[in-house]
Amino acid sequence: MEDGKRVFGTICRSAVDIFSAESLEERLCCGRPLKIKFGADPSRPDLHLGHTVPLRMLRRLQDAGHEIIFVIGDFTGMIGDPSGKSKARAPLTFEETRRNGRSYFEQVGKILDTKKARIAYNSEWLGRMDFADVLKLAGKYTLARMMERDDFAKRYAAGHPIGLHELLYPLMQGYDSVALGADVEVGGTDQTFNLLVGRELQRDYGQTPQEVITFPLLPGLDGVEKMSKSLDNYIGIGEPADSIFEKCMRVPDVLLEDYFRLTADVPEETYRPLLSADIRQAHFLYAREITRMYCGSDAAASAELRYVTVASGRAPGTMRVISVNGSGASIVALLREAGFAQSNSEARRLIEGRGIRLNGETVEDVGLTVSGDAVLSRGKNQFVRIRFRH
Amino acid sequence: MEDGKRVFGTICRSAVDIFSAESLEERLCCGRPLKIKFGADPSRPDLHLGHTVPLRMLRRLQDAGHEIIFVIGDFTGMIGDPSGKSKARAPLTFEETRRNGRSYFEQVGKILDTKKARIAYNSEWLGRMDFADVLKLAGKYTLARMMERDDFAKRYAAGHPIGLHELLYPLMQGYDSVALGADVEVGGTDQTFNLLVGRELQRDYGQTPQEVITFPLLPGLDGVEKMSKSLDNYIGIGEPADSIFEKCMRVPDVLLEDYFRLTADVPEETYRPLLSADIRQAHFLYAREITRMYCGSDAAASAELRYVTVASGRAPGTMRVISVNGSGASIVALLREAGFAQSNSEARRLIEGRGIRLNGETVEDVGLTVSGDAVLSRGKNQFVRIRFRH
Repeated sequence: MEDGKRVFGTICRSAVDIFSAESLEERLCCGRPLKIKFGADPSRPDLHLGHTVPLRMLRRLQDAGHEIIFVIGDFTGMIGDPSGKSKARAPLTFEETRRNGRSYFEQVGKILDTKKARIAYNSEWLGRMDFADVLKLAGKYTLARMMERDDFAKRYAAGHPIGLHELLYPLMQGYDSVALGADVEVGGTDQTFNLLVGRELQRDYGQTPQEVITFPLLPGLDGVEKMSKSLDNYIGIGEPADSIFEKCMRVPDVLLEDYFRLTADVPEETYRPLLSADIRQAHFLYAREITRMYCGSDAAASAELRYVTVASGRAPGTMRVISVNGSGASIVALLREAGFAQSNSEARRLIEGRGIRLNGETVEDVGLTVSGDAVLSRGKNQFVRIRFRH
Repeated sequence: MEDGKRVFGTICRSAVDIFSAESLEERLCCGRPLKIKFGADPSRPDLHLGHTVPLRMLRRLQDAGHEIIFVIGDFTGMIGDPSGKSKARAPLTFEETRRNGRSYFEQVGKILDTKKARIAYNSEWLGRMDFADVLKLAGKYTLARMMERDDFAKRYAAGHPIGLHELLYPLMQGYDSVALGADVEVGGTDQTFNLLVGRELQRDYGQTPQEVITFPLLPGLDGVEKMSKSLDNYIGIGEPADSIFEKCMRVPDVLLEDYFRLTADVPEETYRPLLSADIRQAHFLYAREITRMYCGSDAAASAELRYVTVASGRAPGTMRVISVNGSGASIVALLREAGFAQSNSEARRLIEGRGIRLNGETVEDVGLTVSGDAVLSRGKNQFVRIRFRH
């Protein structure tokens, strides 16, 4: 087990709130692997950068030897909205919730070791509860305490309907902690209320209340709302590299520091000076790093090239164009035509050093024949458009 | 089937509210036996006169050919108060709820024909519901509508805790109507909200909503609160005759008219003149009538005698006392001593005519030997105290 104090320090640097910091530190230092609970909504299987903020902390905790438990809230997912008022939340079948759960978990695998993590579907215990169990659970909480939840209070004050079933949802989520005997629960600040319900229910059911760690919500690309698929202001970690790269380049300047701090592994001393010196280069650094994290280095380099040549909106006319007679040419000849190499041997060395890309794809074959118009590039900043003249 | 319009007229004369009167009349006149639901709390098995107000109307409906369904709310009874805050509502075992239910129903048998009525225990359907069913049910109702219930609104405004399970109780009671497919539900005015919930839930579950009839709450003997066992201001219909009689005599003068109207079968033209002419005689008439209804004529007569001789608080010194030598005497001799009979044969005739009571009990044996001090009476108004001198 890694030293608990060091892990605790890492948590403190990025968490918004800890309930309670003192006993969290104690538990992290006790040498016992802790059960770390994290709730996931299977109805939204596409993970985005906002989701990675707590997931990256879970990775840290996993590396320190603790057990990560993903709770897939399939139970409510299967029910949908029983009031029938929200058409957006149609009930899912058992199979759909399992499929969504699998898809979710595959994406999580990009951040932490899913083989060492545990997935728990809360239908396992909630599906077994009868009316008497529900009443017992509901009896643990008063209406007044439930109405301390901001959104409930606001909706009630505004005269907007709150279905009675909605008041039970936080209890269900809280009961998950009881069923699992969770030591710690991690979530976004928007989940603070629900996470604390779990803490209180555990106490009511005779367990040691879990420690709660909340993480900041990442603002979306619009710079206004929190990142969310439904608002289309998100960067999905399962998206193609080109799309991730392009979206990263659109992060509002003022938010780029937050994005670096919360979602990337770039050291502060690297990104911080760049933010003030050259914000465009900072964007490139960020986009390169995030695309690399979720798609690998090669895809990141291709995406960057594609971004520079296409997605940046640079018109073909502004790119250097080389006209070549015939319908095809060897890659070596083209590199010399483009001025990227002074000799055939230099051209071959560049290819063997994986420094040459054709339409964003790394060229691996020195004997390649190119036919048809293409964009040829060397490294990250040199590129020409090849046009064949028949 | 009795004429529906006549039954409807009877209901209108004593009901406080009908939702809706129009369709109730229609259903009563359609010639089909209706399912009349009536809810009972098994945790309070002792029926009092307050309970008889709706029960007497049920008797009327039963006589008219409708099916009376008593819903014993054993489900919540078995759960008790899950918040654990009310010590008064300890959970009952299955056996206890059944025993309470039986005891309740025996008492109901004093008012209507229990053989023709149906008893339903709501654990039959509520006990089968799982968490998903509960959420579906809860989703039919909003918090705002639930908070229209007076007591909830008041408690919430006053900052008194309302357990979330409590919000589910009206839904459970309402769902009973769905499970039974009730046509009509009868209850006290304090149940109006819950009865209307049943109406709305039936609509939500695709049924024709039940008609709701509410009856006035009988004020207790204190003249302030509604009659209730816990306030000790009640007249229980299962109490001994002496106790019923004595309590009836304590009904506050100003309430006696209500008591007559709501709980007795005495015609208005009989009790009304007496109320203004001689309130004490009106009390006697009421006490005699109620004791007769629940204990029979003989017990009522004995109770009246005992009331007059003992419970009225009349001191022995103010009653005529006859001293008799020896340690015992024949009943016939005592009747002559007391001046109730002029001859042995007249004494025997009085006994055979059941006109003589000893300590409130009708004397049936003309050869009875009385030993020990006693109160001897002829009819309702003549009595003497017998004292033996050894």
